[in-house]
Amino acid sequence: MSYTTHHTIKPGVIAPNLTPFEDDLSIARDLYLDNVRRLLEDGCVALAPFGTTGEALSVSTAERLEMLEHLTSNGIDPKRLIPGTGLSNLPETADLTRRVVDMGCAGAMILPPFYYKGVSDDGLHAYYARLIERVARDDLAIYLYHIPQVSGVPLSIELVRRLKKDFPEHIVGIKDSSGDWENTKALFGISGLTVYPGSELPLFEALDLGGAGCITATANVNTSAIAKVVELHQNGETEAARRAFEKVRTLRLTVQEYAPIPAQKRLLALQSGDARWANVRPPLEPLSEARGRELADRLRSEVGLDILSMD
Amino acid sequence: MSYTTHHTIKPGVIAPNLTPFEDDLSIARDLYLDNVRRLLEDGCVALAPFGTTGEALSVSTAERLEMLEHLTSNGIDPKRLIPGTGLSNLPETADLTRRVVDMGCAGAMILPPFYYKGVSDDGLHAYYARLIERVARDDLAIYLYHIPQVSGVPLSIELVRRLKKDFPEHIVGIKDSSGDWENTKALFGISGLTVYPGSELPLFEALDLGGAGCITATANVNTSAIAKVVELHQNGETEAARRAFEKVRTLRLTVQEYAPIPAQKRLLALQSGDARWANVRPPLEPLSEARGRELADRLRSEVGLDILSMD
Repeated sequence: MSYTTHHTIKPGVIAPNLTPFEDDLSIARDLYLDNVRRLLEDGCVALAPFGTTGEALSVSTAERLEMLEHLTSNGIDPKRLIPGTGLSNLPETADLTRRVVDMGCAGAMILPPFYYKGVSDDGLHAYYARLIERVARDDLAIYLYHIPQVSGVPLSIELVRRLKKDFPEHIVGIKDSSGDWENTKALFGISGLTVYPGSELPLFEALDLGGAGCITATANVNTSAIAKVVELHQNGETEAARRAFEKVRTLRLTVQEYAPIPAQKRLLALQSGDARWANVRPPLEPLSEARGRELADRLRSEVGLDILSMD
Repeated sequence: MSYTTHHTIKPGVIAPNLTPFEDDLSIARDLYLDNVRRLLEDGCVALAPFGTTGEALSVSTAERLEMLEHLTSNGIDPKRLIPGTGLSNLPETADLTRRVVDMGCAGAMILPPFYYKGVSDDGLHAYYARLIERVARDDLAIYLYHIPQVSGVPLSIELVRRLKKDFPEHIVGIKDSSGDWENTKALFGISGLTVYPGSELPLFEALDLGGAGCITATANVNTSAIAKVVELHQNGETEAARRAFEKVRTLRLTVQEYAPIPAQKRLLALQSGDARWANVRPPLEPLSEARGRELADRLRSEVGLDILSMD
């Protein structure tokens, strides 16, 4: 079946890369590119620009396209990018998705339309069906994005199954950020679907089921350690992988105690000495420097990760 | 205080006018204009195009601007329009809002950024503050839009009070669609703020508190009856107003038993004989003709409103 040709991303960790802002809240182009390069060098097999972690819904469509062009014109391979393109309406989502396909990106990560709540599976099915029709590209590869605690609009297992069945060449995968392992496990039962947990916490269980890794926010500060777990597991060194995973898990749980987007941005500001990294767009609020130092101290003592002395 | 100059809309009913679609789901321009003219003729004091009822978040920014230009170039007075301009991000919301101000509209109805949940009042305050700064127009008149059951992002009484205090010339009103009368009543306590309940159900209580009317979805099928209630109340004919209100209330409660947006569109399709009226954009689903006829029958028997024989 031809849709397997989409699966060019090797198993590993994918970062929904953070979006840094200047003090006037325009995107900091230099930091954006630097961070992408760093994440790929640190071992990300791909990136998912403009996900929830990348403050995607606080960024305009024009800004997303401008940054993607900035990346590709600076040598970043679009085949390692799965940008978020899901907006709340069909015409703008279709236009943005088509642009991303035409740039040669590996796929597009697409939220359900997230304004109207309590909508039916039939309504959501119609949305994705119309979207695929409007994008009108044979090489459109959609990764569905299930993050009901933020979007307010869940993608049921039954709906995902129907979409995969009806559009097998276009629905290639899903990121499940629900944090509900039973849901993720059920998704693994859908034939031909690539399933990424939206966190490293169930990484081991996912790999044991033949999963391809995870797409996780905390990859922005912990790529190499997460990548190592996947590598050891792939090599059959299960015990070493499990030992490495313990620290990865602890870091995740500690960062989760803070607001993860502002917290990771503050860590990068402290690490780089570039205060712009701490900026977030409202309605999010920056994490204070004091709280950031507290978090950095905890990571050093709890998992031996010395964020402030890394480069 | 100069901000009172914004209050050019007289007391009455404001319809968040429905957005009709062609079968290919583009906006049906002729029906859009016809419906606006009909609502104004039937007694709406103003319209709120592109609210939740107008499927605003299923429509692109370009489409909103195109339709507003279509209206004003066909003689609709922009001073009777309060279009919805709230998107999930700052740059696009600012651009759209500035365009609406420059068209001479009476105001802009602005949702909080509705993707990220659990955000702080400080974060939302910063969003509106940055928005006002970016729109950069002295005559910007903002109507806040509180509809937490859909947006997922409430505007607390305390936040609304702070915004009104910090930007008295720009924050002129609020539409409270929470359905929580205690919340609406508390908003009436904020000095200088025009408060519109987002339904006719608490219309009487709102008028008794000196309110200016309501902004209600069901005005799309029941404008003249709701307008009559306000008129009678304004004239001091309280008992007649109360009797008229009973039917208005019954109609609302009956329509609410159906999905209100598809239901009203189906009623207009049946009334006009134009099947395009039944179209909705996914993720919403159209109401079946059978269910629409059932609703029309109920309205005839329950409140004596013969939708199918109106013109």
